[in-house]
Amino acid sequence: MTNINDPSLRSWIEVSEDNNFPIQNIPFGIFCTNEKSPRVATAIGDYILDLATLAELGYFNTIPFDKQVFHQTYLNDFIALGKPITNAVRARISDLLNINNNTLRDNEEDKTKVLHSISSVQLLMPVKVGDYTDFYSSREHATNLGKMFRDPENALLPNWLHLPVGYHGRASSIVVSGTPTIRPKGQQFPKGAATPVFGKSKLLDFELEMGFIVGKKTDLGASVSTQQAEEHIFGLVLFNDWSARDIQKWEYVPLGPFLGKSFASTISPWVVTLEALAPFKVDSPVQDPEVLPYLKFEGKKNYDIHLEIELQTAHGGSKVISRSNFKYMYWNMCQQLAHHTINGCNINVGDICASGTISGPEPGSYGSMLEICWQGTKPISMPDGTERTFLQDGDTVIMRGFSKGDGYTIGFGGVESKIAPAIKHEL
Amino acid sequence: MTNINDPSLRSWIEVSEDNNFPIQNIPFGIFCTNEKSPRVATAIGDYILDLATLAELGYFNTIPFDKQVFHQTYLNDFIALGKPITNAVRARISDLLNINNNTLRDNEEDKTKVLHSISSVQLLMPVKVGDYTDFYSSREHATNLGKMFRDPENALLPNWLHLPVGYHGRASSIVVSGTPTIRPKGQQFPKGAATPVFGKSKLLDFELEMGFIVGKKTDLGASVSTQQAEEHIFGLVLFNDWSARDIQKWEYVPLGPFLGKSFASTISPWVVTLEALAPFKVDSPVQDPEVLPYLKFEGKKNYDIHLEIELQTAHGGSKVISRSNFKYMYWNMCQQLAHHTINGCNINVGDICASGTISGPEPGSYGSMLEICWQGTKPISMPDGTERTFLQDGDTVIMRGFSKGDGYTIGFGGVESKIAPAIKHEL
Repeated sequence: MTNINDPSLRSWIEVSEDNNFPIQNIPFGIFCTNEKSPRVATAIGDYILDLATLAELGYFNTIPFDKQVFHQTYLNDFIALGKPITNAVRARISDLLNINNNTLRDNEEDKTKVLHSISSVQLLMPVKVGDYTDFYSSREHATNLGKMFRDPENALLPNWLHLPVGYHGRASSIVVSGTPTIRPKGQQFPKGAATPVFGKSKLLDFELEMGFIVGKKTDLGASVSTQQAEEHIFGLVLFNDWSARDIQKWEYVPLGPFLGKSFASTISPWVVTLEALAPFKVDSPVQDPEVLPYLKFEGKKNYDIHLEIELQTAHGGSKVISRSNFKYMYWNMCQQLAHHTINGCNINVGDICASGTISGPEPGSYGSMLEICWQGTKPISMPDGTERTFLQDGDTVIMRGFSKGDGYTIGFGGVESKIAPAIKHEL
Repeated sequence: MTNINDPSLRSWIEVSEDNNFPIQNIPFGIFCTNEKSPRVATAIGDYILDLATLAELGYFNTIPFDKQVFHQTYLNDFIALGKPITNAVRARISDLLNINNNTLRDNEEDKTKVLHSISSVQLLMPVKVGDYTDFYSSREHATNLGKMFRDPENALLPNWLHLPVGYHGRASSIVVSGTPTIRPKGQQFPKGAATPVFGKSKLLDFELEMGFIVGKKTDLGASVSTQQAEEHIFGLVLFNDWSARDIQKWEYVPLGPFLGKSFASTISPWVVTLEALAPFKVDSPVQDPEVLPYLKFEGKKNYDIHLEIELQTAHGGSKVISRSNFKYMYWNMCQQLAHHTINGCNINVGDICASGTISGPEPGSYGSMLEICWQGTKPISMPDGTERTFLQDGDTVIMRGFSKGDGYTIGFGGVESKIAPAIKHEL
C-alpha cells in the first residue's frame, strides 16, 4: 500500500513547493458556494475538492460508511466515523489525486463537478465545538507573563511545571477565519483610576495558538492515557485566542479569564490531520522536575510547525511581527488530554483544546502583542509609519502555520481577521 | 384570559399543598419509558404528562408550531420556539388540567395514553447544554471563602462588588439528577508534602446553586441589557456544582477552576419557567458601591426560592444540613446576563448560567461542605453516628428548591446523586 506521506508523491493538480495543500496534506474543511449547500471538502493546491459530490459519483464506494456525513454542515459526523474510516478516505483521496491515476484525472466532466478554485468558495466553520479548553503550555509565554505581572525571579507559579494548567473557554464565540473581530466593550480599572470604568477595550491583543480537535469521545468517568491520546485527536487548527488585556486584568481574579476572552476566538478553516503531521514529530523539551506517572509519555510528541504572525494596517503596510514554532510547547497534546481526563471529565468529537500562546525563546518569537511590545513599553514600527503596542481598528492579523517536508509544505491555510470598531452601547 | 399563576386554580389531578408540581407550575422536562422514546413532558402532582402524545391527539392544534419539537430528546427546539409559543403551550396545559375543564378530564382513553406516574418513567437530561457559565454571585459565599483562604479583614477581592465574577465551566459533564457522581482522581499538593501527589480526591464537596437556561439566542457582537434579560431566560434548574477541593486548590492559580469541577455537575430534570416563578419575585440586596450603568436594573429581580440540602449516608440516616434561599444573591440573573454579553459574547438556547454557591448569612444556610464544616474544622454529626467534613463514598446529596404560594408549592423536584467510589487508575 502507498505511504500517503511519501514526499515523492505528486498530484495531477499542480502544487507549488510552498503551497499549504500538497497531496501529502489532505486536510478537511467545510465549504459552500451560491449553488452548493455546506459540505465537506479537502484542499489540493489552489483547489478544493467537493467530497460530497465525489461520493455521489461513486468514488468512495469501496469504503463502507454513510456518505451523508459529507453533506453535513460540520465535520463532526465524518470525524466520528473513526480513524480507520477517515484514514481510508484520506488514502482514497490521495490515490485519486495521484499523478499516475487517470480515474479522475482524465474525467473532465467529473472534475468540473468536484473541483473549485479555493478563491471561488466560502470556507465555513469546520466543526461544531462542544467544549473548548485553553491550555497555557508554553513555558516561555508563562514565564514572560510571570515576569511582567508577578515576580521576575519566580515567574512561574508553583503548579506550572507539575501539570498543564488550563481552563474552560467559551465555545459559542469560536468563529472561522475571515470573520471580523469586533472590539469588545467591558469593565476595566485603568491605572490611577479611583473606580472601575466602562468602555471599549484599549488593549486588544491576539494570542498565537494551535488547537486540536477531539476525534473520539469518552464516557464520563473514563480517562485517556498519554499513550492512548493520539487515538482521540483527529487533527489540528490554527487558533487565534483574542484577548482584551484591560478587561482580563480586572476580572480574572480569582476564577480566571472570562469576558476578556469570550468575545471571539478565530480558527483556520482547514483541519490538518495528525497523520499528515506525523513526519514532523520531534522530541519534547526535557521536563524537570519529573512529572507524575499519569503525565509521562514515550516517543516524539511535539511537532515542528513553523508559525508566523503578520500584521496589516488599514492604510497599507504589512509586517511579519513574530515567528514561533509549535515545537516549543513544554506540555504536549498527549499530556494535555491525559490531564484533562484524569478526573473522569468526558470529551466529545469536535471539542477543541488549544495550546495557549506559543512563544519561543527569543523576543522575535513571542505569540502576543503583550509580550512582543512588553506591556506597551516597546512599540512596533509599521511600514505605514504608525506604531503599535496593541491592535487598532482596521488592523488585520494573519497567522500561518506550516511544516516543511522534502519538496513540499504541509500547512493550514492561515487564520485571518480584521478588527472592526466596537459597537456603540445602547443601554 | 385566565391567569395561570392564580393561586385558586386547581387541577382534576389531585396535588397536595407541598407537592412541587401544582397547576401553577407546569415545568418542562424530558422522559422515556420502555415503550416511549425520549420526549417532552410536564409534571402535575405525582404524574407526568406526555406532551408529544397529547399533541398527536390534537390537543395543541390551536397553537401554530411544529409538534415534532415534542419528540426531540432535548427541550432546546421547543424552547427556541420563543416565549409567545412556549407560554401559549403552558396556558393550554393549564387549561386542559383545570378541574373545570372536562376535555381531557373525562376522556379516560386519552388520559391512559398521556399520563404516567412520575415514579414509572425515567427522567432525562432536559437540555443539550451548549456553553455553561458559573457565576460566583453570593456575597456570603465569596466572603466565607475569602475569610478561609485570604484575608479575613478583606475577604472580598477588589472586583467582587463591581461585577458579577464568573468563569466558563465544562458543559459535557453536566448530567441529570440520579446519575451517580464518581469520585474524581487528580493531582493535589497536600499540606506538608514536598511534591504534588496523584490520587483520588479526599475533599469532595457539593455546591448548592441554581442555573438559568438561556431561551433566546444572540448574535456575536450583541449585548443584552438588564431590561431585556428576562426575554432571554427560559427557566431555572437546581444545580449541584460538585467540587474536589484538593484538586481545585492546587490547580486554580492563575486561570481558575478546571479539573476540580469538570468531573460532574448535576441538574434537576425539571426546568421551571421564569413565568411560574414570577409571583415569588423579591427585591434584590442593596448594592453599594453603586454599580456601573450597564449593570443597573429596575424592579424586583431576585426570587424567593427556599433551598435545602439533605445528606444521606450509605448505612441509613439522613439529615438536612443546610437551608438557604435564592433571594440572597447579590448579583441577580439579569445582571449576570447583561455582564456576560457586554463584550459581545453570543449566547445560545440551552446554555446554562449557574449562580455560584448560594450561602445565606447564617452558618445553617451555607451552600457547601467547605463552609458548613469550615474547612474541616467543624464536623457534622450524622444520625448513624458517623461524622462528615467532606463527602464519603456512598453518601447521597439531595438538593431541593421550592417557593411557597398561597396553598401551593412551586418546586423543582430535587436534584439527587450518590457518590460512587473512584475508578481504579490504569496507566
